[in-house]
Amino acid sequence: MRKPRLMTPGPTMVPEDVLLEMARPVIHHRSAEAKQVIAEVLSGLKEVFQTRNDVLILTSSGTGAMEAAVVNTVPPGGKALVLNAGLFASRWGNICRAFGIHAVLLDTEWGQPVDPARVAAALERHPDAVAVFGTLSETSTGTGHPVEAIGRVVAKTPAVFAVDGISGVGAMECRTDAWNIDLLCVGSQKALMLPPGLAFVAVSPKAWARIDAFAPPCYYFDLSAARDRIQQFDTPYTPAHTLILALRAALRRIRDEGIEDVWARHTRMSEACQAGVQALGLELFSSRPAEGMTVFRVPEGLRDTDIRDKLVERFGLTTVGGQGQLKGQVIRLGHMGYTDELDVISSLAALEMVLSDLGLDIEPGAAVTAAQQVLLARTVAGSR
Amino acid sequence: MRKPRLMTPGPTMVPEDVLLEMARPVIHHRSAEAKQVIAEVLSGLKEVFQTRNDVLILTSSGTGAMEAAVVNTVPPGGKALVLNAGLFASRWGNICRAFGIHAVLLDTEWGQPVDPARVAAALERHPDAVAVFGTLSETSTGTGHPVEAIGRVVAKTPAVFAVDGISGVGAMECRTDAWNIDLLCVGSQKALMLPPGLAFVAVSPKAWARIDAFAPPCYYFDLSAARDRIQQFDTPYTPAHTLILALRAALRRIRDEGIEDVWARHTRMSEACQAGVQALGLELFSSRPAEGMTVFRVPEGLRDTDIRDKLVERFGLTTVGGQGQLKGQVIRLGHMGYTDELDVISSLAALEMVLSDLGLDIEPGAAVTAAQQVLLARTVAGSR
Repeated sequence: MRKPRLMTPGPTMVPEDVLLEMARPVIHHRSAEAKQVIAEVLSGLKEVFQTRNDVLILTSSGTGAMEAAVVNTVPPGGKALVLNAGLFASRWGNICRAFGIHAVLLDTEWGQPVDPARVAAALERHPDAVAVFGTLSETSTGTGHPVEAIGRVVAKTPAVFAVDGISGVGAMECRTDAWNIDLLCVGSQKALMLPPGLAFVAVSPKAWARIDAFAPPCYYFDLSAARDRIQQFDTPYTPAHTLILALRAALRRIRDEGIEDVWARHTRMSEACQAGVQALGLELFSSRPAEGMTVFRVPEGLRDTDIRDKLVERFGLTTVGGQGQLKGQVIRLGHMGYTDELDVISSLAALEMVLSDLGLDIEPGAAVTAAQQVLLARTVAGSR
Repeated sequence: MRKPRLMTPGPTMVPEDVLLEMARPVIHHRSAEAKQVIAEVLSGLKEVFQTRNDVLILTSSGTGAMEAAVVNTVPPGGKALVLNAGLFASRWGNICRAFGIHAVLLDTEWGQPVDPARVAAALERHPDAVAVFGTLSETSTGTGHPVEAIGRVVAKTPAVFAVDGISGVGAMECRTDAWNIDLLCVGSQKALMLPPGLAFVAVSPKAWARIDAFAPPCYYFDLSAARDRIQQFDTPYTPAHTLILALRAALRRIRDEGIEDVWARHTRMSEACQAGVQALGLELFSSRPAEGMTVFRVPEGLRDTDIRDKLVERFGLTTVGGQGQLKGQVIRLGHMGYTDELDVISSLAALEMVLSDLGLDIEPGAAVTAAQQVLLARTVAGSR
């Protein structure tokens, strides 16, 4: 017997009741019932995103939402600032280049948070940059970036602030309106507890003014067309609406728990996981870990695949390795969405056993105990 | 009690076992298991599409596949011929315009099939057209176009032939390679018996040569990037892989029935439905009906919504009305995918009762009997 435990930073585990929504007979996407589902889903997404802005539903991967944010706000030949601090941040630059946009890369060492003061300086050097592309939670490094502080900087300029919130939103605090995020991009397969296939963009009035200022070279990802339709609880093209039906069920779960409590749960899981990993003598990769995942360096003398394959074989526990320049160097353990504190504890217990098996000098129970101590302290201090 | 009967030209009904696939726990999209699923799915799609060309999987609506076909083959400022014979055909033109492509529209009256001789003449007048964009089954009019004959014409020129097969493939004969289709676009929510959310493009060597000849202004829909990944049974961005899992189950059904027999079933359903509708004195809209749907004019004195709403209220039977210039003028009844002959007969029975209720002089049983006669004759003549 092997129970599947999908502890990756996306896709993530989907609650059983949400899975069953997808097994219901397909309805027509222009029916009154479908519109009612979209209306409820929009209201739930706005609560999760903490926004009163328009929220648009795209049938695509999260990358589609990023492309939409780029092509709708920066004309070909225009200039944009990319806060380049990881593999997914660099995707902003790649999208810009594909569409003939001049991407100014503000490089930050992988694993470090972006410095808002450097963003301010870069925008002074490039006053003609019409957009800033940043990241809430960099999935390749497990780093959370100071989006609130960066938002304050960008808000003082004419540039719009677009944030890849794909693996962050729903797992860590993100207040779209209060933090001056003009375009928030989100994917379905992370903390929203859905399979992949849907993406979302929240668009501020400042962003709409930019979008309306030119005719963007796009069709499928034309946000103006999506805005016209969403006002009637509809989409320009047939959406993946079994996923939208499932999203309603997932959002009801988030509403019942309360978004602030969802964030707090992720903070507890993150701190417990960090403590556990460090108790094993492992080194965290990021100096400012994102709440939805824990990324640690592969211990010397071992290969990441040795550890990860054993986790799957013995415990059905799926993690992911490093990407790009981090290939082979880190292991990324996700804990977001339909994940609770015991999932983190059992992942740490599995890690202890596997590392011990592989010959590391591991004290059995050390990681679990360290995590429990964090959770116990948190419960006493933060109990409601 | 009201049983749902989704008799629209997409989305269509999904078999119960395929629905249940989507309720299975989510797996990681880069796992060996996921790659195995993609490998089997590609082989099944090639059989359905009748092609040895590369087949790419996109997470998008069918429109995304159309956009991919356009932006990857025609550079901005380039010229393309659009076989403009309905609302979805005109979408080819709209996509071209959004990307600065010069779309020459070859207009055909809605409901009429495109004339291959006129395509040949147009290509002589426009030898600089690098692509021809056509349609297998025009969903807005229910017309099947002579793609085989058009393919012969285009094959003699340097232009590539892209076909919107979204509501046609799997419902009507379509032999991608034998018919010289260079880019075949297909959606998941039609005859493939899946919910919406996936799209497919089959790309010929002639099309790859065009694609490789310039750097297309695209990112998410970059077919070259998709080609690089699909060779490892992978996709560039996280795909909607619960739908891919479901697709495997749907394709196994098609394989078990046999694609030629699937086409034959749709032909029988189409001919039976046409006979039934005409037996009620209703007029077919198209002079060459596509096999996946029957489109008829709304009888004088009635509104399409009167009929369609009653079909839903009394029998849970969903149809769709006209689009664009046909709004209010036609009713479109889909019969593709997970639909059999009795679904067609019961739809006709429902139509008889509703039209009778609405005061039309209908002979009860006339449509059903006419359909049965077609099916009986077909069974004797074509039985295996």
